[in-house]
Amino acid sequence: MADTPAATARDAKDRISRAEMPGAPPGTLIPELGARRPVVQMIGYGSEGAEEGSVHNARDLSPIQDFLERYPVTWVNVDGLADTDLVRSIGKMFGIHPLVLEDVVHPHQRAKVDSYGDYLYIVTRMVDAREHLDTEQLSLILGKRYVITFQEGVPGDCLQPVRDRIKRGQGHLRSSGSGYLAYALLDAVVDNYFPVLEGYHLLLERFEDQILAGTRTHVVKKVHGIKRDLITLHRSLVPLRNSLQALLRDSFPWFEDSTRIYLRDVDDHSRQLLDLVDSYRKIASDLIDLQLSLASNRMNDVMKLLTVIGSIFLPLTFITGLYGMNFDTRAEYNLPELRWEYGYVFSLGVMAVVTLGMLIFFYRKGWLSLGKD
Amino acid sequence: MADTPAATARDAKDRISRAEMPGAPPGTLIPELGARRPVVQMIGYGSEGAEEGSVHNARDLSPIQDFLERYPVTWVNVDGLADTDLVRSIGKMFGIHPLVLEDVVHPHQRAKVDSYGDYLYIVTRMVDAREHLDTEQLSLILGKRYVITFQEGVPGDCLQPVRDRIKRGQGHLRSSGSGYLAYALLDAVVDNYFPVLEGYHLLLERFEDQILAGTRTHVVKKVHGIKRDLITLHRSLVPLRNSLQALLRDSFPWFEDSTRIYLRDVDDHSRQLLDLVDSYRKIASDLIDLQLSLASNRMNDVMKLLTVIGSIFLPLTFITGLYGMNFDTRAEYNLPELRWEYGYVFSLGVMAVVTLGMLIFFYRKGWLSLGKD
Amino acid sequence: MADTPAATARDAKDRISRAEMPGAPPGTLIPELGARRPVVQMIGYGSEGAEEGSVHNARDLSPIQDFLERYPVTWVNVDGLADTDLVRSIGKMFGIHPLVLEDVVHPHQRAKVDSYGDYLYIVTRMVDAREHLDTEQLSLILGKRYVITFQEGVPGDCLQPVRDRIKRGQGHLRSSGSGYLAYALLDAVVDNYFPVLEGYHLLLERFEDQILAGTRTHVVKKVHGIKRDLITLHRSLVPLRNSLQALLRDSFPWFEDSTRIYLRDVDDHSRQLLDLVDSYRKIASDLIDLQLSLASNRMNDVMKLLTVIGSIFLPLTFITGLYGMNFDTRAEYNLPELRWEYGYVFSLGVMAVVTLGMLIFFYRKGWLSLGKD
Amino acid sequence: MADTPAATARDAKDRISRAEMPGAPPGTLIPELGARRPVVQMIGYGSEGAEEGSVHNARDLSPIQDFLERYPVTWVNVDGLADTDLVRSIGKMFGIHPLVLEDVVHPHQRAKVDSYGDYLYIVTRMVDAREHLDTEQLSLILGKRYVITFQEGVPGDCLQPVRDRIKRGQGHLRSSGSGYLAYALLDAVVDNYFPVLEGYHLLLERFEDQILAGTRTHVVKKVHGIKRDLITLHRSLVPLRNSLQALLRDSFPWFEDSTRIYLRDVDDHSRQLLDLVDSYRKIASDLIDLQLSLASNRMNDVMKLLTVIGSIFLPLTFITGLYGMNFDTRAEYNLPELRWEYGYVFSLGVMAVVTLGMLIFFYRKGWLSLGKD
Amino acid sequence: MADTPAATARDAKDRISRAEMPGAPPGTLIPELGARRPVVQMIGYGSEGAEEGSVHNARDLSPIQDFLERYPVTWVNVDGLADTDLVRSIGKMFGIHPLVLEDVVHPHQRAKVDSYGDYLYIVTRMVDAREHLDTEQLSLILGKRYVITFQEGVPGDCLQPVRDRIKRGQGHLRSSGSGYLAYALLDAVVDNYFPVLEGYHLLLERFEDQILAGTRTHVVKKVHGIKRDLITLHRSLVPLRNSLQALLRDSFPWFEDSTRIYLRDVDDHSRQLLDLVDSYRKIASDLIDLQLSLASNRMNDVMKLLTVIGSIFLPLTFITGLYGMNFDTRAEYNLPELRWEYGYVFSLGVMAVVTLGMLIFFYRKGWLSLGKD
Repeated sequence: MADTPAATARDAKDRISRAEMPGAPPGTLIPELGARRPVVQMIGYGSEGAEEGSVHNARDLSPIQDFLERYPVTWVNVDGLADTDLVRSIGKMFGIHPLVLEDVVHPHQRAKVDSYGDYLYIVTRMVDAREHLDTEQLSLILGKRYVITFQEGVPGDCLQPVRDRIKRGQGHLRSSGSGYLAYALLDAVVDNYFPVLEGYHLLLERFEDQILAGTRTHVVKKVHGIKRDLITLHRSLVPLRNSLQALLRDSFPWFEDSTRIYLRDVDDHSRQLLDLVDSYRKIASDLIDLQLSLASNRMNDVMKLLTVIGSIFLPLTFITGLYGMNFDTRAEYNLPELRWEYGYVFSLGVMAVVTLGMLIFFYRKGWLSLGKD
Repeated sequence: MADTPAATARDAKDRISRAEMPGAPPGTLIPELGARRPVVQMIGYGSEGAEEGSVHNARDLSPIQDFLERYPVTWVNVDGLADTDLVRSIGKMFGIHPLVLEDVVHPHQRAKVDSYGDYLYIVTRMVDAREHLDTEQLSLILGKRYVITFQEGVPGDCLQPVRDRIKRGQGHLRSSGSGYLAYALLDAVVDNYFPVLEGYHLLLERFEDQILAGTRTHVVKKVHGIKRDLITLHRSLVPLRNSLQALLRDSFPWFEDSTRIYLRDVDDHSRQLLDLVDSYRKIASDLIDLQLSLASNRMNDVMKLLTVIGSIFLPLTFITGLYGMNFDTRAEYNLPELRWEYGYVFSLGVMAVVTLGMLIFFYRKGWLSLGKD
Repeated sequence: MADTPAATARDAKDRISRAEMPGAPPGTLIPELGARRPVVQMIGYGSEGAEEGSVHNARDLSPIQDFLERYPVTWVNVDGLADTDLVRSIGKMFGIHPLVLEDVVHPHQRAKVDSYGDYLYIVTRMVDAREHLDTEQLSLILGKRYVITFQEGVPGDCLQPVRDRIKRGQGHLRSSGSGYLAYALLDAVVDNYFPVLEGYHLLLERFEDQILAGTRTHVVKKVHGIKRDLITLHRSLVPLRNSLQALLRDSFPWFEDSTRIYLRDVDDHSRQLLDLVDSYRKIASDLIDLQLSLASNRMNDVMKLLTVIGSIFLPLTFITGLYGMNFDTRAEYNLPELRWEYGYVFSLGVMAVVTLGMLIFFYRKGWLSLGKD
Repeated sequence: MADTPAATARDAKDRISRAEMPGAPPGTLIPELGARRPVVQMIGYGSEGAEEGSVHNARDLSPIQDFLERYPVTWVNVDGLADTDLVRSIGKMFGIHPLVLEDVVHPHQRAKVDSYGDYLYIVTRMVDAREHLDTEQLSLILGKRYVITFQEGVPGDCLQPVRDRIKRGQGHLRSSGSGYLAYALLDAVVDNYFPVLEGYHLLLERFEDQILAGTRTHVVKKVHGIKRDLITLHRSLVPLRNSLQALLRDSFPWFEDSTRIYLRDVDDHSRQLLDLVDSYRKIASDLIDLQLSLASNRMNDVMKLLTVIGSIFLPLTFITGLYGMNFDTRAEYNLPELRWEYGYVFSLGVMAVVTLGMLIFFYRKGWLSLGKD
Repeated sequence: MADTPAATARDAKDRISRAEMPGAPPGTLIPELGARRPVVQMIGYGSEGAEEGSVHNARDLSPIQDFLERYPVTWVNVDGLADTDLVRSIGKMFGIHPLVLEDVVHPHQRAKVDSYGDYLYIVTRMVDAREHLDTEQLSLILGKRYVITFQEGVPGDCLQPVRDRIKRGQGHLRSSGSGYLAYALLDAVVDNYFPVLEGYHLLLERFEDQILAGTRTHVVKKVHGIKRDLITLHRSLVPLRNSLQALLRDSFPWFEDSTRIYLRDVDDHSRQLLDLVDSYRKIASDLIDLQLSLASNRMNDVMKLLTVIGSIFLPLTFITGLYGMNFDTRAEYNLPELRWEYGYVFSLGVMAVVTLGMLIFFYRKGWLSLGKD
């Protein structure tokens, strides 16, 4: 396998399609590989009541038109982006700019807020950490009387509670305009990050315990995985916070002042999320450092033990080797100790002295107390 | 145990309740798990005098009403957030926005200042490091003639000195408006961080001494714990400083100019606290690095000793092994040394030369002076 | 070889020519070493049609004049910068400031946007990662009715798709002014970074797998290479994003409001690119740390094995040495064990006890379970 | 000793008094533990002359009043903060806000500039590195005709040169207003940092030489100490620079435009100091890294030597052990080499081959050239 | 030698003189130790011609006066700052503020731009890396009809090309005012950094190759030296860029709009230089990390080899030791193997099994493939 980025990317063409085709004219709608068949659902509501409906034939959008006429606010939710024709027809119906539609079908955008005069285009990323960390794009178009949302259609949907609140008529939702619906959706998206981050928090605490207890490589790899996920979350949350700030700062017609107070709340939450992500990143880095430091201390212990054992037994073995030599002891100066009556006892004494000397030396250096973590 | 964040979070449902239920309508008041039963106390005061009172029946808030009528400034302190009905009634009495009440009963907010026209909502976090580091939310609502504070009800309260000052009539407190009371409470909250940080400072100094003296793993773990606490403190203090700046920058009606000078002082203190936290974080990181560096030097010493011992005794042992071989010395070229008259002395000489050579070599490399820290 | 920067730079004169000659008067046009012979091509277009042409004789630029007269918008593309006379003549024809021309022929500029009254000078860097990472300067001069682009002439050109769109009459291109053409070119340049970054992403994922699997040095070197490339990309992208922001913020006459919406899109992409580069840099750094941490754990395992082996066999060998000594066993206290009937069995027993003791000690310390990554 | 921050802080009550008593009413003047008895000195001057005086009885401040009446500018210097009554009387005499007096007697403030209408309150920290790094608070109150300075009273005073200049009538000092005196004092405080930083610079250079030369642990500890001092200096200098910027930016009545030019100079110096502190911190960090890197290289050398020695002598010793076995050589297959005529020579040959093979192997790996730093 | 910063600084008094004497009145002109004797040269020019001259007698500045009268623009260049009287006379002649003169003779200022009404004071630092990295202060005073430059007088001067351009009458220089001359000088100063940085770039590339090839300590020390130099360059360049920005932002009378376009170019270059310095710093840090990582991998290899050798030969040696024991084999259970006919073969077999087992174990762990970098 070639290792230049270009070659690697060529080998994996399907993933490049993630990025837009370089040089394609803006507004080109090419469905992403693996995009899902769309399901179009509507909820229309007003202070009197709410009604759900859906579009069965992608070529006939008249049910949407019908809802728009009968209800003060209509929420059109498109789940799945494989049918670019459908996206184009919806775009035409509501007068959406081609660039917006392009961003809708290429769901790899940063969170952003773009004003197009009579509608707002808001992109956010919904988080999903059931299997592994993933983010899904939610494109939200907010007009005077409608909100259109486009999702990639991954099963599991953090917007369900909003749908339920509309149906149950809970809270202000039914009596407020489309801006409040947009707020409620953004709030659901942002709040969904909290349990995910809490999950990372718990994992980090568990891993910290394991590292302090001495478990190893295994944990380092998992902490590394968390760090990578947190980098991804950070990349999602920074533009999200910036977008919410822009929403608060600039005056968009469909956000009334009463709704703006609620937006401030979502903004607070997004900042809190970023604080948490930053803290967890620091904690994860500190865990890696802690593991390195503890490993280095343990290595020290290992080496001290080897050094103590070696320093004691290498000299002893040398002494035994000395008296295991086969010099002809009949010659006077050849190993006279062997012929001594207490030669063995003498040699044992020498060894005892050497051992004791070493032990005292190591005791003074504090190397004998290894392993007390 | 599964290691994905979502699964981990599911396993620990009660902790997720920390975060708000994603998708719940705003203003939903669900008490936190483990929230305490509320105790409601009031202090009313004016230049003529001060009076303490309390609400005994959560359904009857008329005592508060009574205080409000009789005193220029009334401070209502609610300790414990388990009774959401009580919070709702107080909210209704003072005309508090549902979002504020929601934040009050979910005490995991960042410090912030939100203006709601005729009252200000200020969130701060009180620090508590008696057992281990913890922060408790103080929600403060400042109106023209009243200050309402909501605490989680953890025993031990840094607001007691303010209560005492009102009762004793010390300082400007009784002769000033509600803004000055809010200042005094914020000041007490901020000043309470100082002894905590001083405690960390002393611990870091103690640990530094221990690391310099050679103590080990144990200390690394504790310094790691301090780093984690300082990350938490940093997360509390940054929004606190931002809120105080906002209070100073924007003009809120209930902060007179004379009180604003005092706020500047609290703001100074919050910056000083942040400076300290940042310094201590750097010092803690440096301590970990220092430990690693010293450990690496000590390892060097350990290994040098092993190498010196090994390099001297392995060759010596080899020589003794040589003359311990059992070749048939009757053959002329088999170990003739064994038959020499001074064979043993010769072999000892060879060993002495080897040892001396090694010692000179190691002396020149400076490896014999290990252990002089 | 001398190692002072000045000496090193002197040894490599040709590379210094990269930087401009210090002290030369501004507007001096000295061709870079290795600059390519220029090829000049034009495309003129309007709503009715488009025509391609080229300049064959660098001394006669009348074909350009001709296109300018006949078409609403003319794009002059100069590929190769060796002929400074040609650059000067084109500059004269369009009234370009000498400083612009100097920047054009010294293609080592940062991305920037400079307004010169009736034309805009935009510098960007095109990325090329086919062999190894390289960036090429694209100088773009945008006037009311023309766009002039200067490239270094490296084969392979990310502007081809724009050329094709003009010829095919796709999208808004033909019906819009020169500002839209400039946008289309900038968009092509920016979008071309995506596959390159995706390539780095794939490489990092592959290297992460290899590091987790235990592969070594080789990978560290490659990750290091990626880090260096990402530093280069960061250096290209930061000024690019700043320039795009400047384009959006300031009002230049040749960018109509409708085009400005498209520019916002390019700006979004440039931010997304920077986000990606920053994330990948962090991931690459984390990989190096991970490798270091895993290597340290593996080293721990290696040392533990050596220590276990040494701690068991050094004492055993000492014991065998003891009973291999040649003391004269006729003396009563000299190695009486040798004369025992079960001496050998006794010595084996001692060894077994030593071995067992060591094994229990190491088992308790958990050192026997090495290698379970 | 307990290791929670709160317990640690309780054990060291006297140090907590550093921080203000949490919850005390603002403006409470409690002297710090260890505060010194005050000495009050005045210098009055004008274009005609200068006079020194001092207050002998802390209860009678009439000498100050006298100076104020007789001289255009009076500088009152209070050295030592133990007598809070004195501070209070001076505060009363000049109409100083209680918060200012509180900050004066709690000398642990950040540098700051606060305007109180007709006087300015400026806090800076003077540096002292004679024994070990210490900073002392200088509180400066600048009114139309007076400057009051409060110092902690540590012996040795960087303001002496200003005193001398007033007495000698050098420079503009006597002919300018109180603003110029304030400038001169700030300038003396800021300039006093330079020799301290130069001292750190020299120390870092010396330590770098020692690290490059191979000295060890000792130096790491000292570099660590410098890093900690530089963190302290950074904490002093950042608010100092911010205060000077505020002084330059805002218009305070007692700083004339001509003095403002001089303030710009002090501001320059404070920035230069911060640049230096930042550089030295980076250099100190780099030194620690360098030491770690060199130590790791030296460890490599140590281990290589051990490995070379071990790899050569362990096999050799094994061979000697082999021929030292006591098998009954009367059996044909038992150690026939022992009976060979050239058995010994053969075994020496085998050993020579093993040794040579190892040496060639290590030579090829480049491990024999250790120690060439 | 004492190790406190103050003591160290005292030991090196001459270096402290670098910093200004703390407490000296502003505008005191004390020559720096080692300052050079000044050489004063003038160039006067206008559209008609240019003339060079010099001041021979420091007490008589009339030649300057003469040039000022005869030419529209006069450049006075003072090389060497030892003669403070000369500096004072020039200052008097042109009406320069004493603070400017003080900064001129203490050439350790940060780059800055200060406006003094009818003249601008610009400080920059010229780079010189011939022997080792050094920066020299260039003080530039720009008035309506003159530019005065003060240099420290180090031989070798990056302003020579400007002098030549004036003499040759190249470019706009002669026909423009003093602002353009100031630009040309700044441009020469800034451009002179490029070859220096290119030199560092080449050195880093060379060191990277050496590190990848396995060279060691030596390179780490040199990369460390480069990091220190880059910190110095960063400290020079940040204020330089800020000054150039200030020049561009504020409107100074002597910079016409046409010159301002050129200044934009110098500003671009200064940013490019900072980008480069930042990149090179990151690359240098990465190199140190890479070296550490590679060293750790190599250490791993070293230790693996030792462990493999030790794990094989320690057991083998133990076995040979076993059969080298001298138990009295006449007792039945004492070393019966020695009496076996195939005892030796049996022991060799055991050893072969042990060796093979170890080799298989190490092969499976992949430790036998060391050294493949």
